[in-house]
Amino acid sequence: MNMGEHDVIVLLLALATLLATGRALGELARRFHQPAVLGEIVAGLLLGPTVLGRLAPEISAWLFDDGPSAVVRAGFGQVAVCLFMFAAGLEVDLSTVLRRGRAALSVSISGIAVPFAFGLGAAWLWPTVLGGAPGVAPLHFALFFATALSISALPVIAKTLMDIGLFRSDLGMIVISAAIVEDLAGWIIFAIILGLIGGTGTAHGVPLTVALVLGFALTMLTVGRWTLNRVMPALHAYLSWPSGVLGVVFTLALLGAAASAWIGVHALFGAFMVGIAVGDSRHLRGRTRATIEQFIAAFFAPIFFASIGLGVDFVRHFDPLLVAVVLVIACAGKVLGCGLGARLGGTAWRESWAIGVAMNSRGAMEIILGLLALQAGIIEERMFVALVVMALVTSLLSGPIIQRILRRPRPRRVADLLSPRAFLGRLSAGDAAGAIGELATRAAEAARLPDAAVIAAVAAREAAMATGIEGGVAVPHARLAGLGTPIVVVGLAPDGIDFGAPDGQPARVVVLLLTGEDDDSAQLELLADVAHVFAPVDSAAHAARCAGYTEFLAALRTGSAKP
Amino acid sequence: MNMGEHDVIVLLLALATLLATGRALGELARRFHQPAVLGEIVAGLLLGPTVLGRLAPEISAWLFDDGPSAVVRAGFGQVAVCLFMFAAGLEVDLSTVLRRGRAALSVSISGIAVPFAFGLGAAWLWPTVLGGAPGVAPLHFALFFATALSISALPVIAKTLMDIGLFRSDLGMIVISAAIVEDLAGWIIFAIILGLIGGTGTAHGVPLTVALVLGFALTMLTVGRWTLNRVMPALHAYLSWPSGVLGVVFTLALLGAAASAWIGVHALFGAFMVGIAVGDSRHLRGRTRATIEQFIAAFFAPIFFASIGLGVDFVRHFDPLLVAVVLVIACAGKVLGCGLGARLGGTAWRESWAIGVAMNSRGAMEIILGLLALQAGIIEERMFVALVVMALVTSLLSGPIIQRILRRPRPRRVADLLSPRAFLGRLSAGDAAGAIGELATRAAEAARLPDAAVIAAVAAREAAMATGIEGGVAVPHARLAGLGTPIVVVGLAPDGIDFGAPDGQPARVVVLLLTGEDDDSAQLELLADVAHVFAPVDSAAHAARCAGYTEFLAALRTGSAKP
Repeated sequence: MNMGEHDVIVLLLALATLLATGRALGELARRFHQPAVLGEIVAGLLLGPTVLGRLAPEISAWLFDDGPSAVVRAGFGQVAVCLFMFAAGLEVDLSTVLRRGRAALSVSISGIAVPFAFGLGAAWLWPTVLGGAPGVAPLHFALFFATALSISALPVIAKTLMDIGLFRSDLGMIVISAAIVEDLAGWIIFAIILGLIGGTGTAHGVPLTVALVLGFALTMLTVGRWTLNRVMPALHAYLSWPSGVLGVVFTLALLGAAASAWIGVHALFGAFMVGIAVGDSRHLRGRTRATIEQFIAAFFAPIFFASIGLGVDFVRHFDPLLVAVVLVIACAGKVLGCGLGARLGGTAWRESWAIGVAMNSRGAMEIILGLLALQAGIIEERMFVALVVMALVTSLLSGPIIQRILRRPRPRRVADLLSPRAFLGRLSAGDAAGAIGELATRAAEAARLPDAAVIAAVAAREAAMATGIEGGVAVPHARLAGLGTPIVVVGLAPDGIDFGAPDGQPARVVVLLLTGEDDDSAQLELLADVAHVFAPVDSAAHAARCAGYTEFLAALRTGSAKP
Repeated sequence: MNMGEHDVIVLLLALATLLATGRALGELARRFHQPAVLGEIVAGLLLGPTVLGRLAPEISAWLFDDGPSAVVRAGFGQVAVCLFMFAAGLEVDLSTVLRRGRAALSVSISGIAVPFAFGLGAAWLWPTVLGGAPGVAPLHFALFFATALSISALPVIAKTLMDIGLFRSDLGMIVISAAIVEDLAGWIIFAIILGLIGGTGTAHGVPLTVALVLGFALTMLTVGRWTLNRVMPALHAYLSWPSGVLGVVFTLALLGAAASAWIGVHALFGAFMVGIAVGDSRHLRGRTRATIEQFIAAFFAPIFFASIGLGVDFVRHFDPLLVAVVLVIACAGKVLGCGLGARLGGTAWRESWAIGVAMNSRGAMEIILGLLALQAGIIEERMFVALVVMALVTSLLSGPIIQRILRRPRPRRVADLLSPRAFLGRLSAGDAAGAIGELATRAAEAARLPDAAVIAAVAAREAAMATGIEGGVAVPHARLAGLGTPIVVVGLAPDGIDFGAPDGQPARVVVLLLTGEDDDSAQLELLADVAHVFAPVDSAAHAARCAGYTEFLAALRTGSAKP
């Protein structure tokens, strides 16, 4: 069987459709501060039998069910999921776990044990509701279901914590460390279950498969990790950069994947373990890591996750009772398990519940686990649909609930508050007082306050202390009574205006900030954001040359205006 | 047909083998200052029927000829070559062409016309030696052969010029602009030939195919380019970065590829055109461009180029007479055509020949063109082998010959001159004189000169003018009579030693340079290299904390010591 011209066209169009729809809905999810994988999965629902297959079955069949191109797409998906798990492994930082020791261990052990027990119990109690695929031993199904409830999604959890500014906090580090341990344990347990179930048919037999899985994992976490860390400087020193080191780590990822497929567990397990071993090296350059993660997140991940929905009709296999039961058991087991674990580890009650909720995100990991179980014949479509829904719902709820528990709103950012109206472009004034006048007038209009009052408040603050900061930026500001949402107005001064900055540079970008008198944190958050955005050398000078609002916003969002 | 577990293992191992061998030999080629693609092609020869197929036919068959995994690998190769051509298109900077106007146009027109005429003439004169595949009209074959001689390889040419430090010179810019025009014209002509040959069988007919190819190319170069440049800031401003903009450009690349496959010319033509349109936007961030190019160069390109050798036995189809004829005609046509064109454009004779030789590199482009012609049945294996050999030989010779013509050696770099013996690690001295003493003693040993003389020479230079430069680096140096190869010795001072730098920072890295009294350029080249390597903020401070020689060399090579 070979690819004809027609097959090439179908393959390219299918990949383009999956990528475009996946990225577009992923972007929409991010807009609502949700992980991109949520949108990517939904894209698959739209393109697969659930929606497009119902509305326009001939288009769906032409794009996705055609002979050789479908085989290639499936193979491409195999490579894509291995690379995705490799990138997920890169994010696992084992030294964080070691530093957090007791608290992390307590959360993760209890966070695995409680949902695992819930899962085993439920599978035994309600075999008719939950039940595995016909022909699968009840014990095997129960073990799978218990594992599926125990796993959590490190990338989603990390993203949620970053979004609400908790990633580098004590609480954040406990959550991340516990999630690492759970991920690791969960995948090893699942690999063993796959070995158990396939065991009768595989070349190795059950005990050998289990031994090989544990041996492979342990080797990668010890010898593999140590060796890679030792070799990494030599890779940078003696190979061309970055293609030398990239070539080596991708080769290792593919070999690890092949090894775990040979053992009899899925290829992605090996790629994940190699990712952990590589990512833990302190010699791996940040730039190399970013190239890998960004390319995989933008190309392979959307194509893979959107493909998942192509195989299953989510409406036909939607079993409301099953979905409800899975969702309740999953949330109860995880939140209770991790919450109690955190409390036992010495965390206060409120933070313990926040940890429990944070760990409840299932995200991409749950869905991949479910897909493998579906392909291995352990579960039927209705359970797969229930697991996907559970993964999506737990990921959706995690962020908002933590914010509510900790009463911690998302930090405000200048880029989110700016609008075309609030962007003045080039200022006509040549001195600080004039610039403040122009900016404050526009700000007063937006705040529906009298011009004179706003100008006076900002000028008074400026007189008390000059607001020029390092790098050619000034941030005149004031706190005003009765103001709700903070107001940001930006003006550019390519020739520079003296705002008395400590480094003596004139300001080329002037950001006026008005915040409410009773909003203690807004001003600090926005000042920190401005300083962060314009930290790269020359970024203010570049931003000052932007031709309009969109270009300036692009400069803010990409962290530097240098094209 | 579906992928079983066995097929997944074979697919992963085949990809890993291609990637590892391709990267390893690519690295070896780079070591000899040759483009990586040379090594990648040779890797394919080793793994395919030419070598491995002879030595161990069962291993070769198991890895590469197996059912579904071979189909997936072929489809993967299709996607890989499209992405590679997309990345090649990104490098095409049309504004460079416009700026160089006359000279570039003169080189490229004559550089296409002369080899094209040579090719047409040779194909008519020696049909028995050159001859196309049976059943192909002689005119079609002659047109293909003429195009194959006219095309040149932009990425290889750019790399060669960078290696010898000519990329940003006047000569370099003329060469690059001419190569851009030739690439563009060559691919459009080839696309039209593919349309002509397939024309009788395609849906569109010949005139429509030609019109569609020209229309597609013109649209991408005008409307497409303009629209993308306009939209780019909005992509950065309103989508997450960099995955938003990456997702959009990859989708466009796949759609462009599908469109040109539908027109009836190969998919890679469309991807290349989209690459040009995207790459020309001045709003595309350098970081985004680097992520795309690095990932593709390290992952897709080696797999694709190494796969080429899998299909053809280069020994059996090696026809010495044909190889010699193709090589001679190709070199004569290109060097004469471009050389005369440059002379007519107003360049001096010596530089004109250098331009002709630079343009003679055929590299990856020729090989892709040959592969497409082989797949389309226009040529037979023996002509494909001759074209590949010609591409490899012209790429190999280009750099060394230009250096000889222009009498321009490769600029020397600190990283190439350093050795474990010349790396002292932490200096014990706490002041400049002591540091110079330690470094000069080791340098004297390497130069086989008396210690005292070397120390005195360096100290005298230091006394005349302090050698601390910005960013925490010092470069004490001296020129000595009778010294051949320059000598570099490095010492680290994490706590800093005052070398009177203009920014007041103490030196944390001290690089001692000894050069020959009659070698005018060495000292300047090495000083410039040190300044360049340690330009990023804090890089000297990071490098000073390196644990040993390999880590320090890694820091030098990756341009910054920050991990």
